[in-house]
Amino acid sequence: MAKDFITRKENYSEWYNELVVRADLAENSSVRGCMVIKPYGYAIWEKMQHTLDAMFKATGHQNAYFPLFIPKSFFEKEAEHVEGFAKECAVVTHHRLAKSPNGKGLVPDPEARLEEELIVRPTSETIIWDTYRKWIKSYRDLPILCNQWANVVRWEMRTRMFLRTAEFLWQEGHTAHETSQEAEEESVKMMHVYADFAEKYMAVPVVRGVKTANERFAGAVNTYCIEAMMQDGKALQAGTSHFLGQNFAKAFDVKYLSRDNKLEYVWASSWGVSTRLMGALIMTHSDDNGLVLPPALAPLQVVLVPIFKTEEEKNMIDSLANQLQTELKNKGISVKYDDDTKQKPGWKFNEYEFKGVPVRLTLGARDLKEGKVEIFRRDTCEKELRGTEGLSEYIEQLLKDIQQNLFDKAVKLRAEKTRNVDTWEDFKVEIEKGGFLMCHWDGTTETELKIKEETKATIRCIPIDAPEEEGKCIYTGKPSKQRVIFARNY
Amino acid sequence: MAKDFITRKENYSEWYNELVVRADLAENSSVRGCMVIKPYGYAIWEKMQHTLDAMFKATGHQNAYFPLFIPKSFFEKEAEHVEGFAKECAVVTHHRLAKSPNGKGLVPDPEARLEEELIVRPTSETIIWDTYRKWIKSYRDLPILCNQWANVVRWEMRTRMFLRTAEFLWQEGHTAHETSQEAEEESVKMMHVYADFAEKYMAVPVVRGVKTANERFAGAVNTYCIEAMMQDGKALQAGTSHFLGQNFAKAFDVKYLSRDNKLEYVWASSWGVSTRLMGALIMTHSDDNGLVLPPALAPLQVVLVPIFKTEEEKNMIDSLANQLQTELKNKGISVKYDDDTKQKPGWKFNEYEFKGVPVRLTLGARDLKEGKVEIFRRDTCEKELRGTEGLSEYIEQLLKDIQQNLFDKAVKLRAEKTRNVDTWEDFKVEIEKGGFLMCHWDGTTETELKIKEETKATIRCIPIDAPEEEGKCIYTGKPSKQRVIFARNY
Repeated sequence: MAKDFITRKENYSEWYNELVVRADLAENSSVRGCMVIKPYGYAIWEKMQHTLDAMFKATGHQNAYFPLFIPKSFFEKEAEHVEGFAKECAVVTHHRLAKSPNGKGLVPDPEARLEEELIVRPTSETIIWDTYRKWIKSYRDLPILCNQWANVVRWEMRTRMFLRTAEFLWQEGHTAHETSQEAEEESVKMMHVYADFAEKYMAVPVVRGVKTANERFAGAVNTYCIEAMMQDGKALQAGTSHFLGQNFAKAFDVKYLSRDNKLEYVWASSWGVSTRLMGALIMTHSDDNGLVLPPALAPLQVVLVPIFKTEEEKNMIDSLANQLQTELKNKGISVKYDDDTKQKPGWKFNEYEFKGVPVRLTLGARDLKEGKVEIFRRDTCEKELRGTEGLSEYIEQLLKDIQQNLFDKAVKLRAEKTRNVDTWEDFKVEIEKGGFLMCHWDGTTETELKIKEETKATIRCIPIDAPEEEGKCIYTGKPSKQRVIFARNY
Repeated sequence: MAKDFITRKENYSEWYNELVVRADLAENSSVRGCMVIKPYGYAIWEKMQHTLDAMFKATGHQNAYFPLFIPKSFFEKEAEHVEGFAKECAVVTHHRLAKSPNGKGLVPDPEARLEEELIVRPTSETIIWDTYRKWIKSYRDLPILCNQWANVVRWEMRTRMFLRTAEFLWQEGHTAHETSQEAEEESVKMMHVYADFAEKYMAVPVVRGVKTANERFAGAVNTYCIEAMMQDGKALQAGTSHFLGQNFAKAFDVKYLSRDNKLEYVWASSWGVSTRLMGALIMTHSDDNGLVLPPALAPLQVVLVPIFKTEEEKNMIDSLANQLQTELKNKGISVKYDDDTKQKPGWKFNEYEFKGVPVRLTLGARDLKEGKVEIFRRDTCEKELRGTEGLSEYIEQLLKDIQQNLFDKAVKLRAEKTRNVDTWEDFKVEIEKGGFLMCHWDGTTETELKIKEETKATIRCIPIDAPEEEGKCIYTGKPSKQRVIFARNY
């Protein structure tokens, strides 16, 4: 384990906070609840963005950009939405600073008070549906399939880097459709896109499900979600996709002329993932030696570290390193040859290990004379000596193996920490151990809230692929037809 | 010219405003001064972003992300900066809305007033240098070469889409260096990167120059810039790169241990281009038939429109269209085969012409029976009939020709509208005709401001490659060693 670095067992929460800072991913800024995403962290986020963006475009979506500010009155138009989003938010009241009357510093200029306050967007349904009203006249204008990459602000009281920050980066898709079915299909489709991304690129297994009424997005008819499990057994909601019905169309009076020539309200979906995914990525794979990154999202996939004494040795190593770099780059693999002499090999080993570079090759003069190099894989921390023959092909396959191994490991852990619980007595004991408890529930918000109050466990989702099964609610004993996932969560 | 579309001659300013809306690039939103960037406009911006981002990375820069909000007190730390930026800005004073005491709607919760107001960033030097203080200890930590893609807000009184909006999208590079020379070299380098981008991709010729003291960025020692000329002869500042000296290091106390073991203030540069580039792109090339896009930035480069009566004809056209699409895509050219039967060919011609698609092929059954297709190039609006042999190679070359032709045309227009002016009498006449007036100037802000007051002309820049030439200031007759560019500007 890394020197001076706290272990997961000692304190999972502190381990995470320290890891984020020490791996150069992010740090807190001077602005309460806002973080600085450092270049290494941002490079991972960029890889996520590029992959997701391509997936959105492949499913027919286009990017656009809508204003940062939302007039206060817009929030008053959708009754549930205002409850959910217009509370803890950043309120812009003035458009100018002026010299303070006492001569010291600046104050908001009383002459420059806004007639109507502006809210820094916590999410953009309102401003976007205000815009869609102008775009939509007839069914010929539908569907509209827009996405935007943007920053949003929610004035969270307790913040944690990536997981919950006042400002965060995200994408939000907002679609408009002719029919209820089409809009709901879109939201289900995007849940699957998110799940595919999480599993194939992040190597994070997720449960696809639907939220209970109580956990639903404010203004949604149905909220689909993907739920991941962290190593400590806590759940993390990694993405949500909402079927909004006609709620926003009604609030913003967005109607279209239908195929049978009637004016109808438009149907909507919205869906988003955020820099929170970074938290999920970090917490799923990393270990007591630092960050572990799946190759598909690692900014640097392979690092080559030389060990040599003489110039002759260095030349020999250079020649292999150059060849390897060319071969790997041709395979689309990112590689760095770190022959900087300011740092010792040992320092470099620690550094790249801590930063989660999936594969490290040590090009040691001594080994090389025997035609061998040392290969270190970050996921298992195993080393092996190998001949240089076919090395780049071997590394290419190794990266795939690492990607798969990380996913398999996470699936295994999740399976170990997921179990059926059938009595309230068991529930209270089991919830303390963490993980997903698969339980029957009577379907009422009342019961859900009571369980939350007593145990801090929430219903993460009703899995979409759970089998029908007769049973009794663990809390009320009332009949139930399907198990749902209870867990404590981030 | 397009039906119902105003000409440049009639009213250049209205022509621009209407073009932006009718070509589906952007529209005004319900929030004063903020625009919605529509999918087609955003697709162009994305192409700009991707190209610039690759250029930044190729010159050693990394992306990061810094907070949207800046504490008010940060602006008070750099004396000139506060004058320039902390005036017309969006001020966040509260972090919660509450039900209005009169029961109607929402008001900023008096209980949730921020201790210190937050400013929505108009530019990020302050928050970034507050961060760099934590990153920089010794010369080993330098240089820092960061860029961020972000939204910024400046509360402009008169706004115009893309050219001047309250919120806009941009990138801002912020670099930290050991020496003055290195920092200034960086800012010069980035001016050249911007100029290369403008000329090679946007096909917009620019003058590389340095701003006068009066036009300098608030807090900079030197501001380098690229200045373009629009078709109406007005200047448009397309990008700026600032050598900031040690001003922000001093304001935020950022020191490093130098190679000779002394604590020194860090040297800085910052540089940015914004969605304003969209305005420059539109105004440089477009005509009375709508948008004209350089192929390098056109979201769609080639469109294929079929004309047919029978199914047999359609099959014949399909087969050529499919082949062409494959060939063009293999060459990295974006192409769309628009065989949608809901719209007539004539409607499609107008649509793609108005949206500036560089090349249109009409695949008419009649022509095709003679082995020919019609090729329309948007830059000159010329049509030609051509055999299908080697068509994709021809189109590939045509796109290059169009790119070059647009640049050449813009260079020619600029040359026509640029002239030396040597007397004040001439100046007052010539400035009314638009264009760049190359004049001697005595180097004082006083003279510059008087000229601006009398003629609304400003000094756009002191070109970096202008020859030394003895002369007399057009206004004061005092000696001068170089001509500068006077113009009215956007």
